[in-house]
Amino acid sequence: MSKLFEEFQDYLNKMNQYEHVITLLYWDMKTVTPKMGQAGHVDALTHFSSEHFAMSTSERLGEMLAGLAEPVEFEELTDTWQYIVKYMKKDYDRNKRIPADLYNTFVQTQAQAGIVWEEAKDKSDFSLFAPHLQKIIELTREMTGYTDPGKEVYDALLDQYEEDMDSATIDALFEDLKRELIPLVKAILGKQKPENPAFSGYFDPNGQKKVQDMLLDYIGFRKDAGSVGETEHPFTLNFSSKDVRVTNHYYEHDPLSSIFSAIHEGGHGIFEQNVNPEYDNTTAGSCRYMGLHESQSRFYENILGRNKNFWIPIYDKLGELLPPFQEIPLEDFYREINHVKNSFIRVNADEVTYCFHIILRYEMEKAIFREQVPVDELPALWNRKMQEYLQITPSNSAEGILQDMHWSDGSFGYFPSYLLGSIYDGMLLDALQEELGDADELLRNGKIGEITKWLNQKIHWYGSTRKPKEVIAAVCGKEVSAEPLIRYFKAKYTEIYGL
Amino acid sequence: MSKLFEEFQDYLNKMNQYEHVITLLYWDMKTVTPKMGQAGHVDALTHFSSEHFAMSTSERLGEMLAGLAEPVEFEELTDTWQYIVKYMKKDYDRNKRIPADLYNTFVQTQAQAGIVWEEAKDKSDFSLFAPHLQKIIELTREMTGYTDPGKEVYDALLDQYEEDMDSATIDALFEDLKRELIPLVKAILGKQKPENPAFSGYFDPNGQKKVQDMLLDYIGFRKDAGSVGETEHPFTLNFSSKDVRVTNHYYEHDPLSSIFSAIHEGGHGIFEQNVNPEYDNTTAGSCRYMGLHESQSRFYENILGRNKNFWIPIYDKLGELLPPFQEIPLEDFYREINHVKNSFIRVNADEVTYCFHIILRYEMEKAIFREQVPVDELPALWNRKMQEYLQITPSNSAEGILQDMHWSDGSFGYFPSYLLGSIYDGMLLDALQEELGDADELLRNGKIGEITKWLNQKIHWYGSTRKPKEVIAAVCGKEVSAEPLIRYFKAKYTEIYGL
Repeated sequence: MSKLFEEFQDYLNKMNQYEHVITLLYWDMKTVTPKMGQAGHVDALTHFSSEHFAMSTSERLGEMLAGLAEPVEFEELTDTWQYIVKYMKKDYDRNKRIPADLYNTFVQTQAQAGIVWEEAKDKSDFSLFAPHLQKIIELTREMTGYTDPGKEVYDALLDQYEEDMDSATIDALFEDLKRELIPLVKAILGKQKPENPAFSGYFDPNGQKKVQDMLLDYIGFRKDAGSVGETEHPFTLNFSSKDVRVTNHYYEHDPLSSIFSAIHEGGHGIFEQNVNPEYDNTTAGSCRYMGLHESQSRFYENILGRNKNFWIPIYDKLGELLPPFQEIPLEDFYREINHVKNSFIRVNADEVTYCFHIILRYEMEKAIFREQVPVDELPALWNRKMQEYLQITPSNSAEGILQDMHWSDGSFGYFPSYLLGSIYDGMLLDALQEELGDADELLRNGKIGEITKWLNQKIHWYGSTRKPKEVIAAVCGKEVSAEPLIRYFKAKYTEIYGL
Repeated sequence: MSKLFEEFQDYLNKMNQYEHVITLLYWDMKTVTPKMGQAGHVDALTHFSSEHFAMSTSERLGEMLAGLAEPVEFEELTDTWQYIVKYMKKDYDRNKRIPADLYNTFVQTQAQAGIVWEEAKDKSDFSLFAPHLQKIIELTREMTGYTDPGKEVYDALLDQYEEDMDSATIDALFEDLKRELIPLVKAILGKQKPENPAFSGYFDPNGQKKVQDMLLDYIGFRKDAGSVGETEHPFTLNFSSKDVRVTNHYYEHDPLSSIFSAIHEGGHGIFEQNVNPEYDNTTAGSCRYMGLHESQSRFYENILGRNKNFWIPIYDKLGELLPPFQEIPLEDFYREINHVKNSFIRVNADEVTYCFHIILRYEMEKAIFREQVPVDELPALWNRKMQEYLQITPSNSAEGILQDMHWSDGSFGYFPSYLLGSIYDGMLLDALQEELGDADELLRNGKIGEITKWLNQKIHWYGSTRKPKEVIAAVCGKEVSAEPLIRYFKAKYTEIYGL
């Protein structure tokens, strides 16, 4: 091991300690910190984020990375370390260009905007949030000018969440979906029955927690390397492959929300628990591609979790843990978890209309960054698009533009990841069935473990070392296409609704 | 504000960020970190503890403290800041003498010993733990040689947890208790009835959690400035007066354990929530005196919580939240929560025989540090003392010497704090009744809020700025004495057992 490499590892170790506590502060704020304690955590978060930023943009780090990129050093490195050095150098060169003051302003504005967003959502008052949103948009634009000079702003943002997926590619994929799904949804809605009132009875939150435990265990989320927390808006985070945290929220009159959140976040968690542990605490570990990440959570949630066969081996258990389900036949349960309807809230949408929720947000973000639509015109634009795609108009901002937290922390460009994930899922399902046989049969026979193992080997193990397009090429042997997802939707809903 | 004072405040702020994440790492490890994630947290804890230690022993801090202690600077400070500078200087002078290597070895040994202690306790195998205990004893002795040169080791340790309480004072207090309580316990046991089997039925852990919420609320623990976690061995910690965390453990067949832990930890929590918020994040805030701290948790747990009148206003509520209590008359409940018996486990002991559990540990610690009893002779010594004071002999180390975690993290000298707390409580009860009237009547009428307010004003508000002896002098106008506690025990148990 060269002296330089040794110094580099010590340096990374220290940076990693900062990342560790930044992650922990965030986790704690979202799960247990009491109201009056939030400010103390924000102070600590600001302190350690700015220390971490200073380390990640220091002259010395630049020198070390440049040194390690020299052939004489680089060729001595393992493949993993070559990847790490290459990616860190890329990140360094980007981040180095951001003025520290701008970065600190951005972090503080994010924290502040997050607090105001919650209040604005509670009061359903967009005008409270508007000036913060305005500032976050401006700062995002300014940051992108430094990180990606010469690149179109929104493409630069998309690239941060799903590398090499520019808006030209996404436009084409989403247009295919729009063209095919608009008539499909129309046909389904023509056959739709009223909602089943059995699902809005009282479902004990403690029973819901037990169901979650059972489901996490069933799909393969490991408790010795993972924990569960309670929060307002479910998320997953991880310190390493050995410590992965999922969260959930339990609604007394909506058991399906926590059930599908459990499976969704469990899918994210299974991904992280199964990354090559050699990559722990480096830029190779964890998956930095959000579309790829969402493809795994959504594969579990939708492709597996909304398949009737998934429930056959465990439906009795569900009834034991949450007795009202004993009164609901599996057939009714299956219909309800695939009840297609035009609704306001993205996170509650069925898997088909969900696509329109994302397409809408994607078009909103293009409008913000390309067409420079002013902030105060955004609620009206949102509502027009809701009417266009879902034929409904929100009665207030809380069920409209204020429903998601993403824009409050500047995550512009994240939303398309959800739908890219589903697009990949269509392709992954094809590949999986080619190699392992019929997915329905595997699920019906309780062999979900084989599916998890296949995903572990084909995708999870590689962490961030393979880009999404590389993963799809390696696993499916094809270019990314929406055709398999569309085919999956058509087949599934034709059967359910007798189209 | 002088330039020096300004620099000092910035320095403190940075140190405080380290303390903040050290506290958070500890909290998380004890409540949610999965098994495989513990090592990552220990790494971070080691990193930040050693950074914090470096800051708390730096030359620059020494210079700043010396500068601020000069009359020209010192007289400009508020009373609070004068206290802070004085105490920090005292701590600095002690800590500065500890070699950094020794400190780091100590922290690592603590972490390691804690892990081995758990395993040894699980397997009830003292020999696993013995070498770690030996090392912890040696390191503690060595550290004390640096921090308190010339002072007798065990007196130095006692002073760390309860300033100005040396073993001569404690010997006298504990001898008074032994003399009076040995015949009292004998008389009680002569009248003792068999245990009530109703208390070992099934009590739903979720119901226990609801009871805990109700109790915390009832005694005055504020949820906007506090949270609750689940852990193996309940504890309380705090970031500031605005973020105080209590924990609990729920046994399906022992509802009284979580009920009295809730009240006990709630008492610690109420103390911290009511310290003058000006002291937050300084050495004046939080209470550093463990006897005084325990006096508050034990006042709630025993003086209030084991009084029948405490339960009168809330006994119906208890039955609602945990239905098996509906079958148990309050009179039986009262007898059970004051069921005196000789038992092995300190944390499950009644309030009278509890005193002997502490006296035993105090004598063990004196034997370790004064008589240099070798580690491998300690289990036998423990068992002899159990026989002497409680007339029973543990059948294994798990219910004997391995039951407490204190020695695994080097907290020698902590145990007497629990009993000092109860001794203070006897005196505080006298003072409270003199000022507010009969405590039974206050409790019976649901006026526990008046008691909490009195404790807030008389004790909690001052945080660490008044030493225990000063608090007792100010509130009770007397020297510390065990007489009031003995009088309380005699009156209460004479009535319950018809002695």
